Amino acid sequence: MVAGMIIDCHGHYTTAPRALLTWREAQIAALADQSKAREKGMIHISDEDIRASVEGAQLKLQRERGTDVTIFSPRAAGMAHHIGDATTSLHWSEHCNDLIHRVCSLYPGNFVGVCQLPQSPGVPPGNCIGELERCVTQLGFIGCNVNPDPSGGHWTSPPLTDRSWYPLYEKMVELDVPAMVHVSSSCNPSFHHTGAHYINADTTAFMQFLMSDLFKDFPTLRFVIPHGGGAVPYHWGRYRGLAQDLKRPPLDELIRDNIFFDTCVYHLAGIELLLKIVPADNILFGSEMVGAIRSIDPETRHYFDDTRRYIDQVTVVSESDKRKIFEGNARRVYPRLNRRIAATV
Amino acid sequence: MVAGMIIDCHGHYTTAPRALLTWREAQIAALADQSKAREKGMIHISDEDIRASVEGAQLKLQRERGTDVTIFSPRAAGMAHHIGDATTSLHWSEHCNDLIHRVCSLYPGNFVGVCQLPQSPGVPPGNCIGELERCVTQLGFIGCNVNPDPSGGHWTSPPLTDRSWYPLYEKMVELDVPAMVHVSSSCNPSFHHTGAHYINADTTAFMQFLMSDLFKDFPTLRFVIPHGGGAVPYHWGRYRGLAQDLKRPPLDELIRDNIFFDTCVYHLAGIELLLKIVPADNILFGSEMVGAIRSIDPETRHYFDDTRRYIDQVTVVSESDKRKIFEGNARRVYPRLNRRIAATV
Repeated sequence: MVAGMIIDCHGHYTTAPRALLTWREAQIAALADQSKAREKGMIHISDEDIRASVEGAQLKLQRERGTDVTIFSPRAAGMAHHIGDATTSLHWSEHCNDLIHRVCSLYPGNFVGVCQLPQSPGVPPGNCIGELERCVTQLGFIGCNVNPDPSGGHWTSPPLTDRSWYPLYEKMVELDVPAMVHVSSSCNPSFHHTGAHYINADTTAFMQFLMSDLFKDFPTLRFVIPHGGGAVPYHWGRYRGLAQDLKRPPLDELIRDNIFFDTCVYHLAGIELLLKIVPADNILFGSEMVGAIRSIDPETRHYFDDTRRYIDQVTVVSESDKRKIFEGNARRVYPRLNRRIAATV
Repeated sequence: MVAGMIIDCHGHYTTAPRALLTWREAQIAALADQSKAREKGMIHISDEDIRASVEGAQLKLQRERGTDVTIFSPRAAGMAHHIGDATTSLHWSEHCNDLIHRVCSLYPGNFVGVCQLPQSPGVPPGNCIGELERCVTQLGFIGCNVNPDPSGGHWTSPPLTDRSWYPLYEKMVELDVPAMVHVSSSCNPSFHHTGAHYINADTTAFMQFLMSDLFKDFPTLRFVIPHGGGAVPYHWGRYRGLAQDLKRPPLDELIRDNIFFDTCVYHLAGIELLLKIVPADNILFGSEMVGAIRSIDPETRHYFDDTRRYIDQVTVVSESDKRKIFEGNARRVYPRLNRRIAATV
């Protein structure tokens, strides 16, 4: 284990070359015309294009902020599992994941891959096993993103604790990879995606886990709930009370080996609450850069999403706990990370 | 203005006599049989029944906790606007509101009424104007609860900022009554009602308001977002950043005269964050008792929902700000309260 490394568990390829989006637009356009063959086709992106897309963005910010490795996945809002069907999602996911693999291959010390899954509303999650296995065993990915609402804001699927998820979870356990619970864009006008849908999904997933014995069935299954756990740490008393009233285990016990929160909370008071309330073993450093909020906070003159700064300022947790948050927990939750990082240092 | 009063802006009649629920069950059963006349009928509840329902519950807790007046509305989970149609909701709302009126008449120093509206999925909110007007002008109510998702977890209605809401808002402005944004029970298995749906709705409503010019059209329209504003204060940096990136007004300006949060956050660290981050002028004391969490926190040996204790312990705000939170803001947001309280002290 390398001392002093900072691992950002939450980065999306939001700056992917334009050609990726052009392909996606053509794919969506073809959905309207049944006569067009639904072929996966090719996307032509050069190594130079990839370098240009991250050199002035994620890599620059890593250097400026003093972070080392980003656990990197396709753009979350781009997944849009509600568009088309399972084949649509499969072709799109394969392209997105292949591109993540190329970024990670060009910068093996800076990025480690996490895959998008080819989910589709009404299709059993087990349908994603093939792509998960390909990404982990062939592309060296260390985890996946699981969308609890592939409908894009209509919440028509069963909860994450439903048995229909079990085949996928069995494969995750076998491969020893965790999932980040992450919805995509919203096609429901009630929900702004980054301002409501994302945060709601985090809160919703936590409550689904709280009510279920999922982790009795899968003691080593692990989920990262992003965006600081949605509303959960702020309402920790409410959830402790709900757990008690519903005869569920105490929260610390419920989450211990299975549920983790990232630190994508964009102000000091929020991070202070998170670090004060949630056990340090269950927090992973994350920034979601370049992501939901791209501007500079006029109050601090730093980027809103420079979450390392907030953690550095917090005094309520020990330095050794901060080391867990910055590095140790990521290595424990994503054990395949150790092979990737060890190989490059 | 009485010095030192504590007004709880968030209480529901969760302990209503069994006869109310029996009537509701019969109403729902009748929906399955089209031949049955859909009559409003009567509910027989004595004054003694009402006294028994609150003496050992809300009134006892008011005394124990040293709070004075509760702004009181029908049980939120009971509204269930997704059941039946507009007539179903109208009959049910009239009964529920009449019962609230009886509680307030029996205990005019302890309870002031807020009404449930007869919303129904797909029915324009203007349909609720009659019941709002009846409750305010005839029953002396001082506000209403507005459900942003009458579908009960499917979110099929337009956002709260849609023009279809404007006729109701015009009436609210004319009557000078605010609304608490409060969903009801969830019929979507993804969402636990008090553990996910309620909190999500609070977050969702805030983001809808953030994106809209609603308060330019209605400068005196006021909403209370309950449960401490959902996830919003914890993610205040995210929302400040979103407002900036989306070219919206700064949050303090956005909320100033129009958006208020209650203090239904059930642990000290959460309340500390709320009081530290949100302007004191925009926070109203609330406990939601007897509500979502009914048990005692083993860590503090006090009820989770005894939110006055947390506020009393917070040192980051002045005593004069706490007076606003406990009383002044409620009198400003619910101006009809002054006539009710003045009349009984």
